[in-house]
Amino acid sequence: MVQLGTNRYGKAEVRVVHVGRGAGPGGSDLVRDWNVSSSLSGDLAATHLTGDNSNVLATDTQKNTVYAMAKKLGGIEPETFALELAAHYTGSADAISRARISIQEYPWLPVSGTGHSFARSGQYTRTVTVIDDAELGRSVVGGVGDLIVLNTTGSQFWGFPRDEYTTLEDAYDRMLATVVSAQWRFRQADADWGAVFPAALDALIGAFAQTESYSLQQTLYAMGTAILTAVPQICEVRLALPNKHHFLVDLSPFGMANENEVYYAADRPYGLIEGTVLADDAPDAGIAWS
Amino acid sequence: MVQLGTNRYGKAEVRVVHVGRGAGPGGSDLVRDWNVSSSLSGDLAATHLTGDNSNVLATDTQKNTVYAMAKKLGGIEPETFALELAAHYTGSADAISRARISIQEYPWLPVSGTGHSFARSGQYTRTVTVIDDAELGRSVVGGVGDLIVLNTTGSQFWGFPRDEYTTLEDAYDRMLATVVSAQWRFRQADADWGAVFPAALDALIGAFAQTESYSLQQTLYAMGTAILTAVPQICEVRLALPNKHHFLVDLSPFGMANENEVYYAADRPYGLIEGTVLADDAPDAGIAWS
Amino acid sequence: MVQLGTNRYGKAEVRVVHVGRGAGPGGSDLVRDWNVSSSLSGDLAATHLTGDNSNVLATDTQKNTVYAMAKKLGGIEPETFALELAAHYTGSADAISRARISIQEYPWLPVSGTGHSFARSGQYTRTVTVIDDAELGRSVVGGVGDLIVLNTTGSQFWGFPRDEYTTLEDAYDRMLATVVSAQWRFRQADADWGAVFPAALDALIGAFAQTESYSLQQTLYAMGTAILTAVPQICEVRLALPNKHHFLVDLSPFGMANENEVYYAADRPYGLIEGTVLADDAPDAGIAWS
Amino acid sequence: MVQLGTNRYGKAEVRVVHVGRGAGPGGSDLVRDWNVSSSLSGDLAATHLTGDNSNVLATDTQKNTVYAMAKKLGGIEPETFALELAAHYTGSADAISRARISIQEYPWLPVSGTGHSFARSGQYTRTVTVIDDAELGRSVVGGVGDLIVLNTTGSQFWGFPRDEYTTLEDAYDRMLATVVSAQWRFRQADADWGAVFPAALDALIGAFAQTESYSLQQTLYAMGTAILTAVPQICEVRLALPNKHHFLVDLSPFGMANENEVYYAADRPYGLIEGTVLADDAPDAGIAWS
Repeated sequence: MVQLGTNRYGKAEVRVVHVGRGAGPGGSDLVRDWNVSSSLSGDLAATHLTGDNSNVLATDTQKNTVYAMAKKLGGIEPETFALELAAHYTGSADAISRARISIQEYPWLPVSGTGHSFARSGQYTRTVTVIDDAELGRSVVGGVGDLIVLNTTGSQFWGFPRDEYTTLEDAYDRMLATVVSAQWRFRQADADWGAVFPAALDALIGAFAQTESYSLQQTLYAMGTAILTAVPQICEVRLALPNKHHFLVDLSPFGMANENEVYYAADRPYGLIEGTVLADDAPDAGIAWS
Repeated sequence: MVQLGTNRYGKAEVRVVHVGRGAGPGGSDLVRDWNVSSSLSGDLAATHLTGDNSNVLATDTQKNTVYAMAKKLGGIEPETFALELAAHYTGSADAISRARISIQEYPWLPVSGTGHSFARSGQYTRTVTVIDDAELGRSVVGGVGDLIVLNTTGSQFWGFPRDEYTTLEDAYDRMLATVVSAQWRFRQADADWGAVFPAALDALIGAFAQTESYSLQQTLYAMGTAILTAVPQICEVRLALPNKHHFLVDLSPFGMANENEVYYAADRPYGLIEGTVLADDAPDAGIAWS
Repeated sequence: MVQLGTNRYGKAEVRVVHVGRGAGPGGSDLVRDWNVSSSLSGDLAATHLTGDNSNVLATDTQKNTVYAMAKKLGGIEPETFALELAAHYTGSADAISRARISIQEYPWLPVSGTGHSFARSGQYTRTVTVIDDAELGRSVVGGVGDLIVLNTTGSQFWGFPRDEYTTLEDAYDRMLATVVSAQWRFRQADADWGAVFPAALDALIGAFAQTESYSLQQTLYAMGTAILTAVPQICEVRLALPNKHHFLVDLSPFGMANENEVYYAADRPYGLIEGTVLADDAPDAGIAWS
Repeated sequence: MVQLGTNRYGKAEVRVVHVGRGAGPGGSDLVRDWNVSSSLSGDLAATHLTGDNSNVLATDTQKNTVYAMAKKLGGIEPETFALELAAHYTGSADAISRARISIQEYPWLPVSGTGHSFARSGQYTRTVTVIDDAELGRSVVGGVGDLIVLNTTGSQFWGFPRDEYTTLEDAYDRMLATVVSAQWRFRQADADWGAVFPAALDALIGAFAQTESYSLQQTLYAMGTAILTAVPQICEVRLALPNKHHFLVDLSPFGMANENEVYYAADRPYGLIEGTVLADDAPDAGIAWS
């Protein structure tokens, strides 16, 4: 009367740091700081139904594999690492038909010219998700998260419908702030990963800054369009943009005018704008977002 | 060359607390403490492409609507509230073709017999997601999150394949701990919501406790099966179970034997087991998980 | 021109879980789930000035010691464990003149009558801080944290001064909610720890519930007094009570009256009330709060 | 039998953002993004004992005061703001004998040359604590938090004592990483705040990078010394440095040597090194750290 549906399992959040000795600019060390999660699917009914683990590559083994592959592959781009790691799994056992690898990379900045000292940037997290399916092929999705941006002007919001619960006034000059979470799908599992990430990031930030915005949706669409234009290898961009409200404080009880100077930065609730921008000729997404 | 894909927008994390005055057991107050997120989709191309907001019901209005509906509807079950709120949106404007409402409910326990004093339970969060589509109908998904459970014995893990990166030893008696995140889909948008939640929760916890487990996958399947058996109105259960590893500490360097007494509770990495259990006659999920 | 001032070092957040096999009620297992931090001070100038570590008991050793002591001592009360662990350090080397041990205990509730299955309570964290100084003696501070409580009525706030920046209206019936952080100092390093904790906790919660409150300060004072009264071994209570504001939503724009039913639970800012209540004959605190 | 001890109260975490229109370099906007907490003490026995609030300046008023002062004072350095805000309170009512103001400042970086677009730096938080006591005078403590730094080499740890619980091996070349939390006390409530903060920060980071370290304590002492040397207006530095362990992964089971390349970044437990460095002629700290 009951059946097993979709399932997968793996090791999440393996915190591996690779130091490329002398591999950085000018012979400095090169730090790659990653949070790697792997997830496998395939012929896994037995472990669910009877606890027969003969097809279950232990998640502990998956952890070990991340470390061993980090040694083997060295301080490469995270997209390449994810592709290699995924291929390792789908090539290792018939029971594993699909591997999903996601990586968060925390960027570090050199300090003080020693060649071995670094400070965590903190400005954003670079993200990668690779899926390798034995039958359906491979997909690569790059992205960025935790990037907080703000426009002090150049944003409006008016012309919206008014119903019985509407109290918001028209805004012709508001602050606009968001924590960018963007993911971009590549047409092929092959690109100059080290070059396309900063190109996409610059396009995204540039579009945020330069769009005279009538809604955060419009800014989202501009960001997606800018990335697709800057990096033709990308065919689809998905964005989730919380509208981190900055409300102008009412200073009139104190006899003061607030001429767009003093704001209250609210935590919750927040607007949440989610959307997708695609190239007209984008190939079908297939498994990329699963 | 570029087009708009799937999109939605709304107000996230509206923290509304409703006090039913005298509505609790014995004339005590009744507290419903919710985190409500709403999200709308429909005819929204204009705001993305040109900043024309004439179809964009402001997220501020959505916040107001949550509060007003809380007043109108009183301290009802969160599933009912979500259904009513979703129907309000799809019924309010042609441009809104779909509404998605999700609620997290934080349970409170009465203390001290005053009828007005409460302590946050902290043991779990109850969750609800309702989707109401003007064409495709309605779906209700209930669930639970943040529930941390542990078995001190009755769990094994062995018989898994060994490859070049495998170092894990067989375990015939291990600790098993997880933070349960479960979501269950109802066959219809109609049930005795106040009764089915504790029934599903009890079934889930009972299955965790009573399964002699050979893998967390097996426990997952038992949990899903127990819920489907206990609550026939539910047709599908999705679970995400992080394996919160408790490693036996090696005390041999100190001349001590560790007879399953002293454990190190690790943070990261953790196993992550995700799976679905369905009734054989489960209707198609349609929009329920979107 | 420069000198070393106060200093200490140690291992923080050792997550040790002890299972007392058959040691619980009715022969069930007994789980003690702790987050232990130790911190040592003494003759430590050399490591700061020259990197001479001959007096520095490694923090890794401190981690090992927590595990080994957990095995030796078994599933005892956290106050006793902290006292024993501290004494071990001050007795182990002349260079260590003081040890500070702090423990957070996460309570677990039995489920399903198996004797080996538990759910994390989540309602509060029990805390302990012990300081053992070779010259100045020992102190024990117990406490509770993460306890969220709420009164739906029985709280007022009026009669406060009004200056040029005051806009708050008098409140004659408001919600009162706080996350209790309380620490209580014992007269002596000896008590029936397993009995006094629930007695202090019950007194605290009872005082919160039963005080007809004109300010959170008044409630704080009542909580401290109740603990001192209920547990004479305690001579001082320190409380930090964030006032987690629940604002009545203005529903008048929607033609509705809000008769103390619908509230917005705010995140930030929050009031923060901190205070100490002492027995008249409390001995000097000495090192207890350092 | 019971008495009131030390106490204070206030509004915590007022999230105020001030935009100086055209006040930045080249006529760009200038963003100051603050989290302000204020706390008052004085003649407050009545509210604790009887709920008489006639001396209790409402925390809501304190919130309003932050906003009004932000308008009045404009986008000034946070130390100056804190001093002015504190003086406002102690000067406003006899009952308020002391004010404590703490500010966290989140730095923003300009992007894209628009003059109005910014990205949150994320690299660190700047901190300020000012105490103004009507009798005892004023103190200013600056600082930095959330700054994550790492040395890939140049760190050792050996020569530590070995007891029955010691298993750690000598390290002659280890990774060293920490999240810096530093606070520095000024000799006087007067300095070129905008200049001394980056000077102190640079000195701290430089000392971390350039110290050939035999213990994190030695690095701590070097950091403190560097700040005192670089900024003579500072007389005392307090640091809390978690040792964020990066453990070399044992790859030998896979037939690989790990030549300081692949590390596991652990979460917990962590070492915690706390210490103070003072100028020989540092004036007494008085109330500065209370």
